Order: sequence, then structure tokens, then C-alpha cells
Amino acid sequence: MTDCQEDGSRNMPPLDIYEKLTSQGELVRTLKTAKAAKADIDVAVQLLVKLKVDYKQVTGQDYKAGCPPSQDSSPAGVVADGEEDTVDPWNISTTSAKGVDYDKLIVRFGSSKIDQELVERIERVSGKKAHRFLRRGIFFSHRDMHQVLDAYEKNKSFYLYTGRGPSSEAMHVGHLIAFIFTKWLQDTFDIPLVIQLTDDEKYLWKDLSLEDCHRYAVENAKDIIACGFDVNKTFIFTDLDYMGASPDFYRNVVKIQKHVTFNQVKGIFGFSDSDCIGKIAFPAIQAAPSFSNSFPQIFNGRKDIQCLIPCGIDQDPYFRMTRDVAPRIGYPKPALVHSTFFPALQGAQTKMSSSDANSSIFLTDTPKQIKNKVNKHAFSGGKDTIEEHRKHGGNPDVDVSFMYLTFFLEDDEQLEKIRQDYASGAMLTGELKKTLIDTLQPMITEHQERRKQITEETVLKYMTPRPLDFNF
Amino acid sequence: MTDCQEDGSRNMPPLDIYEKLTSQGELVRTLKTAKAAKADIDVAVQLLVKLKVDYKQVTGQDYKAGCPPSQDSSPAGVVADGEEDTVDPWNISTTSAKGVDYDKLIVRFGSSKIDQELVERIERVSGKKAHRFLRRGIFFSHRDMHQVLDAYEKNKSFYLYTGRGPSSEAMHVGHLIAFIFTKWLQDTFDIPLVIQLTDDEKYLWKDLSLEDCHRYAVENAKDIIACGFDVNKTFIFTDLDYMGASPDFYRNVVKIQKHVTFNQVKGIFGFSDSDCIGKIAFPAIQAAPSFSNSFPQIFNGRKDIQCLIPCGIDQDPYFRMTRDVAPRIGYPKPALVHSTFFPALQGAQTKMSSSDANSSIFLTDTPKQIKNKVNKHAFSGGKDTIEEHRKHGGNPDVDVSFMYLTFFLEDDEQLEKIRQDYASGAMLTGELKKTLIDTLQPMITEHQERRKQITEETVLKYMTPRPLDFNF
Repeated sequence: MTDCQEDGSRNMPPLDIYEKLTSQGELVRTLKTAKAAKADIDVAVQLLVKLKVDYKQVTGQDYKAGCPPSQDSSPAGVVADGEEDTVDPWNISTTSAKGVDYDKLIVRFGSSKIDQELVERIERVSGKKAHRFLRRGIFFSHRDMHQVLDAYEKNKSFYLYTGRGPSSEAMHVGHLIAFIFTKWLQDTFDIPLVIQLTDDEKYLWKDLSLEDCHRYAVENAKDIIACGFDVNKTFIFTDLDYMGASPDFYRNVVKIQKHVTFNQVKGIFGFSDSDCIGKIAFPAIQAAPSFSNSFPQIFNGRKDIQCLIPCGIDQDPYFRMTRDVAPRIGYPKPALVHSTFFPALQGAQTKMSSSDANSSIFLTDTPKQIKNKVNKHAFSGGKDTIEEHRKHGGNPDVDVSFMYLTFFLEDDEQLEKIRQDYASGAMLTGELKKTLIDTLQPMITEHQERRKQITEETVLKYMTPRPLDFNF
Repeated sequence: MTDCQEDGSRNMPPLDIYEKLTSQGELVRTLKTAKAAKADIDVAVQLLVKLKVDYKQVTGQDYKAGCPPSQDSSPAGVVADGEEDTVDPWNISTTSAKGVDYDKLIVRFGSSKIDQELVERIERVSGKKAHRFLRRGIFFSHRDMHQVLDAYEKNKSFYLYTGRGPSSEAMHVGHLIAFIFTKWLQDTFDIPLVIQLTDDEKYLWKDLSLEDCHRYAVENAKDIIACGFDVNKTFIFTDLDYMGASPDFYRNVVKIQKHVTFNQVKGIFGFSDSDCIGKIAFPAIQAAPSFSNSFPQIFNGRKDIQCLIPCGIDQDPYFRMTRDVAPRIGYPKPALVHSTFFPALQGAQTKMSSSDANSSIFLTDTPKQIKNKVNKHAFSGGKDTIEEHRKHGGNPDVDVSFMYLTFFLEDDEQLEKIRQDYASGAMLTGELKKTLIDTLQPMITEHQERRKQITEETVLKYMTPRPLDFNF
């Protein structure tokens, strides 16, 4: 249980909680509009979430703005007008403590759900047990994954492309999700991988120098390499370097730029007339690695090798644009697998921030820091007192420690037992947090040890344009 | 005199010419709006111009739409509302047979006139007679040329940057103007030169493949090399190649792109929301060679070496933008010298077109083709009959053959004598045309002979990023 939750709203009548919720919602909006300090907003949002959880527990219904509690209020799960989740490459926000409604996102984005059938097919085709991210719906959405598997079954290979925007030296565990899964795909299908570090993007979007963005990219590359990618099958590049090292890459960038109008990027990314022309042109640079002839040193100039992109669902707008352009310039559309968001320690309502040390577990954290952060900051779904908790049980669906375990605890049975014990009240928040701490500490320590072994020469090797092991 | 001008409007009363002019103006507008065949529009425009010349001769006043002739009509030289010259990188148009009003353009663009004092200063500083393009006001406008000379006098060197958009294999004599003058500057000041071939721009703007644009760039490079540039002081590059060969060039492109908004390029270049993002971002690519650290192989990474750009005045919008950005990214503003436009054979109202073989003398024309084109297509300022011409004289100000001689005939005294003889009627149009033919034929033949000597290895040498002879 968290140490300092003192609000007793669960004992209030539904209408009182409803009114408290409404005014708390207004407070959050006011604070956001006034661009108040992040800490203040976080506190207000946490209370809002807590009130929503209590409201649901007391009324059996989701809170819906403008609909006071009643026996026949709206069905659970429907989000009120204007409360739709926001998901794009720069903003992710939801008012639900469980996080973004991913089923709705699949409908909105027009992608497909990774269902049990697809998971089983991946196991069949690869001959390996599905990664826990697939088993648990963390990679939950895809585009054209069946097409990739169809071709693979006919011995037609593909390649992987993922990336990162190097906005600081510090990476947190959330940043590892795509890389952990990508490594599994690389090992499972034995295919080449290109990793784009968008130092140019970070320079364009942030108040950073080109030199800093490039330095962050190289530092981030070390953490990425520490995930264990095969040096003979992996090419890591920063845009600032590779653009100036590959005429074929630039040719693809220009081809894409010719086939996308400002109207289109305005619609997809929300750019405005006062945005710099660098931002407006950038989507083509993130799109270009989706096409195999951007890497002639790897694919021998072939343009027909399909690309599979594992990424966070927030990056999908770039690749919707890419897939729209691809047939018009004679290239295959990239396939995609999308992950959910990794929640901030403070709760699933926010994306984590590299600039807020307490918002997540960083790859540089000491075992002690990990312990303190989890104990102090991980939002709890537990009850206010041990007695209450033993009696009513905790809520794993909003508990960040439990969410983190779904990402990092490999054992399915152990995870399920924790879920049940926590929900029943048999497991206390402190015990749940301890399990997470015991999972994260060795994971991070091992990462740090691997990273320490990575020399500048090793980084240079991964980042040198060169042929890779690939039979196509 | 031209063979087939039969209109006798000079003998009509002023009001009749005025009315004929007005309806002819309407015809031209109708044809343009209806996107009629270029040849039809050209014929209509030629008649319009001829009527204007006659009107001026008869009334002593410029034709002004909406103002019928009278003793006290508007003063000569005032252009009516809506008749302002259009000058930008993609459109040049004027309704005056003498061409664009360059004094007005200097005021509108905020540049400075190259006056007699500056021409004399260039002669003093360089110890050489000014090039005929300076003596005759063909390079007529500048920005910061005095600053460049101040620094040069203190032994601070500078470098030259010019370029070409390779929209076809065919170059005409008008394309040589900037290169002829740039060579003179290179020889005179003994400084390095970079030449940008914007194959990416042509791909973005025209219905051409990347491969064709790049091929045109290499073919054009041969004609440029044939102008005689010193291989030890000249670097020629295509954007498609150099962007992929120089991380420093791309870094400058991104820096510029961060500091220019869509609003700005919309204002400067007239881009709209339906333009592709490649066009919107391109101005940064034309700007980047203005900064010396875009060429570390030449300038050893130094960013403080000033650039002087000889170019047509239509390219000034790119460099107004560049000069606006420069101090904000810590670079010196490039200086500029601007040339007037080289007129089409059909008259000074249009820019020449590489796609219309009869609009100019091409560098591939045979002596016979040159003779035929000049005789058949060069707009004449002469009178309809020899008798008339002997009596009233011709008008060298609107005569394209005379205009071409001002570009290519080196001898000032001979040129002045031709002007006087033509204006007095002592020289007939046929004689004037013959002088031009005699000037162009050997010039083009010699160019062709020099170009024939240029091997692929020579082109490769000019186009390889490498150190140049430069003491700074």
C-alpha cells in the first residue's frame, strides 16, 4: 500500500464522490491550461484517478462527466465526448487509470489486433514459444503481419527496423520494450536489423545543440547494444551521420518528400504554419529506413525486401504515412507490430519522461534507487489500511508495480498467482513492490555490466555502414 | 529588319493604337488563362510589344491600361497597377519590351545598385579592368560587395558559390552568364569556387525521375567545366551525391531548416499547403553552400569564410532567406552580385526555356542553326521597310540581337558604334543580326571543342570532394 493516501472517498455517497470527481477534473484541466508545475499536476491527477477507482468500486460504473450516478447510467468503458485518448508521437494522454483504451485505438488507427490465432501462428512458424510481450498483449496491434509470415513460410525473408529519439543520455526501462522484443524477433527469425537514432529530429524539436543530440545518440547506442543484438546482423545509425554517408538514403528521403504534401503532414501530425520547415520535412526521414534500398550495403541495392517495424503505437502515424507513399514510389509497404505504452511510476495516465528521474526506473539507477523509487513513487492499487486491503483486496489493473511485472516477470504462473493474491488481499502492496524490486534490480545490474563492456570500437562497429549476414 | 512584320500601326491615330493595344492585351490574358499553346501566346505577346513600342513612338508616352492617350497622361515609366514585374525563382514576367525594370527591383528587393563607384573600386582592388558584364550593368545589383572588398584589402579571402538547376541536358547561352562572370571573379581574386547542381530540386519540381535529374546534372557539369574553371580551385557537386557524402553539409541543412518556418517560405516563395514537403524544405539545401563549413574538405572546418554568390536576380529570394538565418546560427551572411535576365530570342518579356529550342541559342547548336535562329526568331527593333528604317532608325533598346551583343561582344567601342548606327538607321537589322551571328558562331564552336575534350575522369575530378588550392 502506498504510504500517504489519506482520502476516504470510498465511504462517501456516490453523488458526493461524483461531485468531488467533477471538481477534481476541472482542477486538473485548469492546472494543465495554466501550465502549472508537473508535480502539482501529477498530484491532482493521482487524486482524480483514485476518485475514479473509488467511484467505480462504490457504484459499479465508470465515472462519466455530465452523468451523475444512477442505476441505469451509461455502460462501463464508454468514454465521454472530449475524453478520447490522445496518442501521437509527441503526446499520449488518457484519463483512465488503466491507461489508454487500446481496442479503441486499433479501430481509430485502422490496424489489426494481435489475437490468439496470430500469436499461435507466430509460434508455429518460428517453432518458438511466443515472447511474453505477445502472450500478454503488450505487443497488441499489427499491420500486415500475416503477409510477412506467409512470405517467410515460402522462404522469403524480411528485415527489422526500429529506432529511438535520443533526447538525453538517460534511458529508462520503458525504452527497452521495443528493443527487447526486436532482439527476440531477430533471434527467432534470424534476420537483419536497422536501428535509426533520430538525432536530427531531437535537434529540430528540442532546445538542444546538434552536438548534444549526436552525443546522446551514441550514448543511447551503447544501451541498445547492451540488449544483446548480433553485431553481424545489426546496423545502428544516427541520421546526422548516415544521411551524409549514403546517397541512396537521401534519394529515398527526397522520393518520399515529393509524394507527401504539407496538407497531409498537417493532418497526420498536426503541424502548423509556424512550425519550422525541418519538422515539416522530417517524417520522410523516419519513413526512409522502411525501404530496403536505403541500405545498399546490406541488401545489395534490392528494393523489394519487406520491412517489419516493432514500435510503440504512438509512432504509427509516421508509418501510416509511409505505407501510403510506398506503392506510389514502387516499394513494398512496411509491416508493423505495435506495443502499448510503458506506464510512468505515477500511473498509466502519462508517458514517462526522460527528464523526470522519478517518473521511471532508469538504466543507470542503483539497486537502492530502484528500491526507493518503487516504494515511494509506484502508484498503488492497494487499500488505505492493511485491514481494508485484507478485506477488499487490491486492484492490480491500476497498480503500476503489477503493470511493471507484466512487462518483466517471465513466469506466467507466478504472475497470475500474484494477480490473484493481490486482488484477494492475500498479498499486500509492500509484498508486491518487493517482488518488482527483486525483478528489476538484477535486470538493471546485468544491463549495466553488459554496457560497461561496450567499448568505443564496439559502438563504431555497429554504427559502420557495412554488409550484414543475410541470406535473401 | 524582320521578314514578316506587316502591321502598320505607327501610322494610326494614337487613340486607335490605344484601343488596338487594349484589345491585344485582353487577348494575351485570355490565351494565358486558357493555357493556350506557347507559340500562340508568343505571337500575341510579340504583337502587343510591337504595339507598345509604336504607341510610345507616336505619343511619346508609355501605354497605360485604362488611360487613353492625352497631352497630360501619366508620366512615362510608371507601370500601372497590377503590371508590376514578377520575379522569383520560377517566374519572371514583364510587359515591357525592354525587359524587367531593374532599378525598381533593387528597391523592392532591398539590394544595392552596382554603381560606377563600385565598378571602379573593383578595378582598383583587383588591378584588372572590370568585366564587360560590370561595365554594362549586366551584373547590376549587389549585397555587401563593399564588405567583401574591405576584407579582401586586409588580406581576408572569400569564396564563390554559384549553381544551376539541371532540368535538361540542354543549356543555352543565357545559362553561361553567371558562369562566365564567376570564372572572371575566380581568376581575378584567385579564390575557390563551389558549384551546386540542384538535381533534387528539379526532381521535386518537375515530372522527371531522380536518375534523369542526376544525369542532366553530370551533363551540365561538362558544359560548366568547358567554361574554363581551374580544377584546383573548383568543386562541382550534385545535391543527390553530396548530401550523401558530407555529414557537415546535412548538419547545416538541418540547422537552417530549424530556423525557417513554413510561414516564412510561404511568404518568400509563395508555397501553399498543397505543395509537397520536399519543396517546402528545399530552400535550406540551396542556402547551405553559403556557409564555408559545409565544405570541410576545402575550408578545414572553418565557418567564418565569407561567401560571394554571383547569380541571376531571380535567385535572390533564396539568399534573402539565407542572410536572415545566418546570424542566428552563427555564420557570416553571404554577399551577392545579381545579374539581369538574358532575354529570349522572342523578346525580353519572357525567361528563356530549355524546352523550347527556338527560344535561345543552345550550346549544341550548329553554326547553321545559330544563323537561322537569329535571322528567323530574334525580335527586331527595326522598321518595317528599309526606307522607313533608313529614315527613322531602329530601336536597339528592344532589339534582341543588340541585347545579345551587349552580353557577348567584348569591344565597347564597336558596341557603341553599332548602337548609334542602328538607332540612326545607318545599320539595317540584317547587318546587326550578321554581327551577332559572327560573334556567336565561333564562341559556340569553341565551347563545343572544349566540351569535347572533357572526359568522364575530368568530370569525376571536379566532382570529387577534396581539398582545393586556397590560402586563408
